[in-house]
Amino acid sequence: MSTVFSKIIKREIPAHIVAEDDNYIAFLDINPLAKGHTLIVPKMEVNYVFDLPPDVLSGLFVFAQKVAKAIDKFSDAERIGVAVIGLEVPHAHIHLVPINGLFDIDFSKPKLMLNPEELVEITEKIISFVE
Amino acid sequence: MSTVFSKIIKREIPAHIVAEDDNYIAFLDINPLAKGHTLIVPKMEVNYVFDLPPDVLSGLFVFAQKVAKAIDKFSDAERIGVAVIGLEVPHAHIHLVPINGLFDIDFSKPKLMLNPEELVEITEKIISFVE
Repeated sequence: MSTVFSKIIKREIPAHIVAEDDNYIAFLDINPLAKGHTLIVPKMEVNYVFDLPPDVLSGLFVFAQKVAKAIDKFSDAERIGVAVIGLEVPHAHIHLVPINGLFDIDFSKPKLMLNPEELVEITEKIISFVE
Repeated sequence: MSTVFSKIIKREIPAHIVAEDDNYIAFLDINPLAKGHTLIVPKMEVNYVFDLPPDVLSGLFVFAQKVAKAIDKFSDAERIGVAVIGLEVPHAHIHLVPINGLFDIDFSKPKLMLNPEELVEITEKIISFVE
């Protein structure tokens, strides 16, 4: 069965996509810890990130770097933090989260409630910064 | 001025090193969230992980994958989570943390107090699993 991320890749489920190439896709997290919180997903459907072939894993982080630089320009946070947990969806993914402090990546914190207009605005801004 | 991580690389400060090659080093976190919590550090002294040259960044995660597979064998946790925060030491580094749940990478949690014998034992076990 397709994961929810594969359904996003196949456009069967909508998402706020900010970048995509042949092997990877980036879209906004629907339960963000901060404005600009983005998921980076390999199109290869593998559950555990460290089970990805090394070349797919390394490409994933080079793609994430490109997206992180765009989020950095969008966000006024100090930097973009990274978390890979992967217990929610059985399809490897990286969280990119704008952070100002050590405790800003904490998934037990209440999530932001963003309205649809804000999500579209954030998406468009990040897309405009992707090089 | 050298970062504390560069001092570890130059053997000016002791650490529980579990893996090393020409470009990267891995050692136990001294304030671990879990047994086996390990830091992966590029020898290139760059503050922000996304400022690393793409080839150094991708190599960092391939090296981390090798170490994560060893920690996976050492640990009975469900998988190895990843966090890159980097606001504590101005030298890019990846946290590899054995996790069983979404909330197990939370740096506001109290850290484990491991005694020197336990740290040596963990180090030796992880080293024995590095391929």
